[in-house]
Amino acid sequence: MEFAIGVDIGGTKIQFAAVNREGAIMERQLMLTEALLGPQQLVDKVLAGIEGMISNLTPGGRIAGIGIGSAGQIDFRTGSVAFAGETLPGWTGTPIKRLVEERFHIPAYVDNDVNVIAVAEKVFGAGREFESFVVIALGTGLGGAIVESGQLVRGAFGGAGELGHVSVDFNGPRCPSCGNYGCIELYASGTGIARLGAESLSAGATAAWKPNSREIIEAWLQGEPLAGDVMDRVIRALGSAVAGFIHTFNPEAVIIGGGVSETGPVFLDALNEAVQARTSAAMSKACRLLPAYVGTDAGVIGAAAQVWHYGNNR
Amino acid sequence: MEFAIGVDIGGTKIQFAAVNREGAIMERQLMLTEALLGPQQLVDKVLAGIEGMISNLTPGGRIAGIGIGSAGQIDFRTGSVAFAGETLPGWTGTPIKRLVEERFHIPAYVDNDVNVIAVAEKVFGAGREFESFVVIALGTGLGGAIVESGQLVRGAFGGAGELGHVSVDFNGPRCPSCGNYGCIELYASGTGIARLGAESLSAGATAAWKPNSREIIEAWLQGEPLAGDVMDRVIRALGSAVAGFIHTFNPEAVIIGGGVSETGPVFLDALNEAVQARTSAAMSKACRLLPAYVGTDAGVIGAAAQVWHYGNNR
Repeated sequence: MEFAIGVDIGGTKIQFAAVNREGAIMERQLMLTEALLGPQQLVDKVLAGIEGMISNLTPGGRIAGIGIGSAGQIDFRTGSVAFAGETLPGWTGTPIKRLVEERFHIPAYVDNDVNVIAVAEKVFGAGREFESFVVIALGTGLGGAIVESGQLVRGAFGGAGELGHVSVDFNGPRCPSCGNYGCIELYASGTGIARLGAESLSAGATAAWKPNSREIIEAWLQGEPLAGDVMDRVIRALGSAVAGFIHTFNPEAVIIGGGVSETGPVFLDALNEAVQARTSAAMSKACRLLPAYVGTDAGVIGAAAQVWHYGNNR
Repeated sequence: MEFAIGVDIGGTKIQFAAVNREGAIMERQLMLTEALLGPQQLVDKVLAGIEGMISNLTPGGRIAGIGIGSAGQIDFRTGSVAFAGETLPGWTGTPIKRLVEERFHIPAYVDNDVNVIAVAEKVFGAGREFESFVVIALGTGLGGAIVESGQLVRGAFGGAGELGHVSVDFNGPRCPSCGNYGCIELYASGTGIARLGAESLSAGATAAWKPNSREIIEAWLQGEPLAGDVMDRVIRALGSAVAGFIHTFNPEAVIIGGGVSETGPVFLDALNEAVQARTSAAMSKACRLLPAYVGTDAGVIGAAAQVWHYGNNR
């Protein structure tokens, strides 16, 4: 039996999994990232975790490849880190692919954490039937990935898909991370929802309670009016942005994943309505808004899915 | 000597040209579109114009192919019109490629008028050295085209690149053509600039003078303060949108063409400054903002350039 090893490197934890051709996790392990210990420690953890996966394999199991998804901007061609910010200090420049291949003599693929979610969708999920789709990951921030003609859109150095830094209000607040004004991430993401919540509460002159996005979404689902106003802004902003992505890419689907979207059908239905109202008829008809098929394990399954997607092993 | 015949079908005129491999126009003809006469008359004009180009060829000249750029949404694969609005009434559904190939027995390529400008840039212009770039055409409206890995991004049915219908203000006015709010076309285009000008004048309680975009740009260049305010909004809105495109595509270049951009370096310099301030450092460093290389004849030269780009005749 053949397996792909997936590694999902995030700011707080590293997930390892052995994934079969059907996308099922056969074996898994979790480590804390402890990013502040620096890049050498992180590399050691990654190599140790892969080692562990290999030695735990059932007899007769074969490793077809190792797929890695990492926070930060990754140069897919070289498999090294083009840029990583405060999430993974010192990680910039690490030649992950080379280090892993030198150690294990197995082909490795390295990409950023949202691109591998798109690969998971392409290989196992909602993207199987589509050649052209956009993935939006609504987590702490807003990440994106774009598939055109069945391939990820990468741009000059693999930085394409930073959809969180598309402006939906050129008179809006300045984005601390990119310098643009009114980036969609400032509205439709965990931190964005919390920001709008705090703004709305201070305008309402209520006590200095700072709800997080989960609390705001729960209050919204229970019909609390202030939370309703906040989520109305979130959905209008995101609806305008998604309509813009549809006009930009003419995709067959927009796939919504990440923690915020796991709120369920109420959120997606409201978003879908906002998007429909903002999209030209022909493009709207050609495009479906879908929840991500692969759930909380999308990062590690997507990391592994690279092996099946690029490895020509099918 | 080999020629490509280019045909540029617009709302008011049709341009025909015989273009050589270096992008020079060797022969040209202009017809009025008279779109209201309907699609059959339009087809007849297009065929007659091509006929004329062929019969005027110098002895020994060979036609390598016929390239057509048309207003509206074009399905490149079939070479037929997917959707054309009021600009070319009844044009939707016309199988241009088939009609032209049946008549002349020469390979024909049909695409929309902005995609062929991107092809002109790829074959003859600023895009020759780039595999990944975005073209923005600032005319009456705002059109776009996207090149990734040397190929046009087309999406589900060839509608990709409608960059004018990306929102830069989700609380802005509703766009009459697509339904989104605060589309960038409502700010940074001939009609957008005129709209902001009228708004600004009525706020200033001046007489009911309605300047067009050319007059506003001229007044801006001469230091007129009200026009300065208008153009400041235009440039901030367009700067935010272009920064968003850079974050989306990580392109090597953004190429700005169309009538508004022909204002010259003052406009492009101001836009460049606004874009730089709004773009994350790594992406900004990797991307140049350039004026379109091919000028007023970009439509017909680009139409012809399809023959050299797709024909494998190089």
